[in-house]
Amino acid sequence: MKSITIVGGGLVGSLLAIFLAKRGHKVNVFERRADPRTTNVYAGRSINLVVSHRGWTALKAAGVNETVERIVVPVYARMMHDRDGQLTRVPYSIENRAIHSVSRGELNKVLLSEAEKLPNVHLHFHEQCVDVDLDNARCTFKNDITSATASIKADVVFGADGAPSAVRQAMARGRFNFSQEFIEHDYKEVAFPANADGTPKMDPQCLHIWPRRYYMMMGLANQDGGFTGTLFMPHTASAVTPQASSRNAGAAKQPGPAYPGSHSGPGPAVYPGFDTVRTVAEVTAFFQTHFADAMPIVPDLVDQYLRNPQSNLAIIRCGPWTHRDKVALIGDAAHAIVPFYGEGMNAGYEDCKVLNDLLNEHGDDNWAMVLDAYGKQRKPNGDAIADLSMRNFVEMRDLVADPRFILRKKIEGRLQAKHPDQWLPLYSQVKFTDTPYVDALREGQRHDRIMEQVLAMPGVEEKWESDPAVQREVERKALELLTGSK
Amino acid sequence: MKSITIVGGGLVGSLLAIFLAKRGHKVNVFERRADPRTTNVYAGRSINLVVSHRGWTALKAAGVNETVERIVVPVYARMMHDRDGQLTRVPYSIENRAIHSVSRGELNKVLLSEAEKLPNVHLHFHEQCVDVDLDNARCTFKNDITSATASIKADVVFGADGAPSAVRQAMARGRFNFSQEFIEHDYKEVAFPANADGTPKMDPQCLHIWPRRYYMMMGLANQDGGFTGTLFMPHTASAVTPQASSRNAGAAKQPGPAYPGSHSGPGPAVYPGFDTVRTVAEVTAFFQTHFADAMPIVPDLVDQYLRNPQSNLAIIRCGPWTHRDKVALIGDAAHAIVPFYGEGMNAGYEDCKVLNDLLNEHGDDNWAMVLDAYGKQRKPNGDAIADLSMRNFVEMRDLVADPRFILRKKIEGRLQAKHPDQWLPLYSQVKFTDTPYVDALREGQRHDRIMEQVLAMPGVEEKWESDPAVQREVERKALELLTGSK
Repeated sequence: MKSITIVGGGLVGSLLAIFLAKRGHKVNVFERRADPRTTNVYAGRSINLVVSHRGWTALKAAGVNETVERIVVPVYARMMHDRDGQLTRVPYSIENRAIHSVSRGELNKVLLSEAEKLPNVHLHFHEQCVDVDLDNARCTFKNDITSATASIKADVVFGADGAPSAVRQAMARGRFNFSQEFIEHDYKEVAFPANADGTPKMDPQCLHIWPRRYYMMMGLANQDGGFTGTLFMPHTASAVTPQASSRNAGAAKQPGPAYPGSHSGPGPAVYPGFDTVRTVAEVTAFFQTHFADAMPIVPDLVDQYLRNPQSNLAIIRCGPWTHRDKVALIGDAAHAIVPFYGEGMNAGYEDCKVLNDLLNEHGDDNWAMVLDAYGKQRKPNGDAIADLSMRNFVEMRDLVADPRFILRKKIEGRLQAKHPDQWLPLYSQVKFTDTPYVDALREGQRHDRIMEQVLAMPGVEEKWESDPAVQREVERKALELLTGSK
Repeated sequence: MKSITIVGGGLVGSLLAIFLAKRGHKVNVFERRADPRTTNVYAGRSINLVVSHRGWTALKAAGVNETVERIVVPVYARMMHDRDGQLTRVPYSIENRAIHSVSRGELNKVLLSEAEKLPNVHLHFHEQCVDVDLDNARCTFKNDITSATASIKADVVFGADGAPSAVRQAMARGRFNFSQEFIEHDYKEVAFPANADGTPKMDPQCLHIWPRRYYMMMGLANQDGGFTGTLFMPHTASAVTPQASSRNAGAAKQPGPAYPGSHSGPGPAVYPGFDTVRTVAEVTAFFQTHFADAMPIVPDLVDQYLRNPQSNLAIIRCGPWTHRDKVALIGDAAHAIVPFYGEGMNAGYEDCKVLNDLLNEHGDDNWAMVLDAYGKQRKPNGDAIADLSMRNFVEMRDLVADPRFILRKKIEGRLQAKHPDQWLPLYSQVKFTDTPYVDALREGQRHDRIMEQVLAMPGVEEKWESDPAVQREVERKALELLTGSK
């Protein structure tokens, strides 16, 4: 039985506490913020989460899946909203499998309550970690109400304190590789209301996407009939020449400026950013130009934009994740990623599950070996999901509106339907299996190369939909390439 | 006339002070350490520096080149020391051009003295920057002797405070991209003594290299007949299988373990690191195995190893380098690199020169424009010299001992001799021109591709040295590829 400090009582810290307490360890969780069960700590900056297969695997291993099942909404498909308000529904899985939308706040609350049921878990709120003595697993906390400081010695410290991790900062004083990279886009939360009778205004079992190349809005259902939406938009406006515009977007086939309203007359197109959309008039014009179809669904869209905080998005990579048998980083503290694959939380939950498996394998008294193996096994997967998440941003923002991309999805769906043992699309590997992210990424890159060759076959773009002979030839070619490149 | 704070009075801070004071600005330099003219602040951790062409360009523009010329030693060639003590001399330039070795401490001293001659420069030592208010160009310094703190408001702040930059840390609190990456190798200083009569024991006009793949030692002459040497060695020992060993080293042609003494019997070879070479016996055995030829030149080599501190090497990249018209990073604070191209200081001096040119262009009252242009122009060059420096590490450590690499150098030398207007090798572009590093790197990569094709021509490896027909054919092919790929 060890004494364990978990810095951070968010999504990952609370689940980790349950895992470790169920093994018999004495667990103290220190959270900087207030108890989310008493205050809405995420107001205005939340992005709804989805639980994917690997998230469920971890929740099951911790014995809390049934509690979580009560607060989720299943999501079976992407629903694309184009500029004219036309909808296109693309299922996530040919087997009608779902991912599950959940509110960050609600999930955090139920996990904290589950943790608190265990007699050997103690939760401490308003406690900010201000220093970590790595060699002695000793953390100093400052209470943000009383300003009292306390020094807590443990056997093992976990840094589950998210992207701005204080534990990671302590590790970064030594020989520690670290990078933080802000992406061009910031975001704002947008709340989509339910109808007056409490029914949802859009299909709640879809992830709704408004792909607009330079901008993107998405919405995920809540249990109350409303949706939590998110507007993604560049931090700063950009002037883009038509060619550069196509090149940057990775969709070189579209000539000229992509969308009306962004551009008039010769010279480079100007795409507004958060820095140039600030007044009521600017915000109204922006939404009318790019998201006219969403305005009736969210009547106070402009007000919300003006009221809600603007948050930025960074990718954090670091290593090593562990310090001897004393300290380990977990979740966003180790691998903060962008939210476009909906895997940030799931990756953190898989960290917990892998750690638990390693404790099963090596025992609870062999922390040097367990932490070393944990860091070595998880770090490449953290890097892979970071890459996958940026890749999915491009896909959601640009490609879902690209006919060639939609054709590729259809061809892959058919390959999967006829050869489920041979062709599992990347999205399914990430969301519906426990395949390590590194392996999924590698397989996805192989699929890219194969599908590029398939789409270059003569007549495919024009005739695949209608001509069974072309379909057969495509299938033969894809499987041949798949076997040949294994 | 502006009031300017320079944080850091090292090599770059002192030169920048001279540039800005000569323009008429009021310059205060705050340095964390003691005055190097009164204390040896670099004891035991120095790597000798070389001034290259672009360093001289900046020193000339600042009007201090003649002062610096008095303390340098010209270096015309690399001298490779192989395991058997055999020497191979490879000139840096077919035109007998030199780079210039200089002691970091001596150079810092003369530049501080030059700066201090200017009435509008004020130097402050023992002043550690503990905070920067970026929007107001206000720095807080803590005196490490009196512990007094002072808050200094200026018009513009320059962070010339090196790799651990406090100014950069203040910028990193915002939307700031940052990465620090430690390389596998750490280093220790080794002092090579002169003969009893003050004459040097090795040719002082060469950079001496002991390339040993997993290890490397180098030495650069001082004016007193001695050399400042540096031992580079992995932070941790590694077990490497023979194949992996060759692959990692980028020299796939050598079968089996590379060097005697590192490996006996079947199984992976074990290459010691700083962590496993710690006792007198271990250190002695290590030098006897890998650097036997250097032991007579440095009789107290083992003692020095045991006594001198071990330092690590990191590459730091960040951006943006500037904050409005108020703050800019310069030198290592913006782009800390590894020392293997000898360009760290020269890159920082070029930063100063470019800034001075921009002030000439835009005037001394237009800092928003000047700093923005400075950051945009220099950042890609900082990234390029970081890449170039790692590239040169591989070259110095492995390739200089590779016959194919030596042949390539000879072929390139001949191409340059016969077609000086068309073929300027990468090393010459970096060390003997003011070509921006980004352009040099791009041209060097083009040369790589061309030389790869040239070396793959039948008979080249066997016959180039002896057969004029092969030489002519190689020349024709290389120039054809050069023209074709422009």
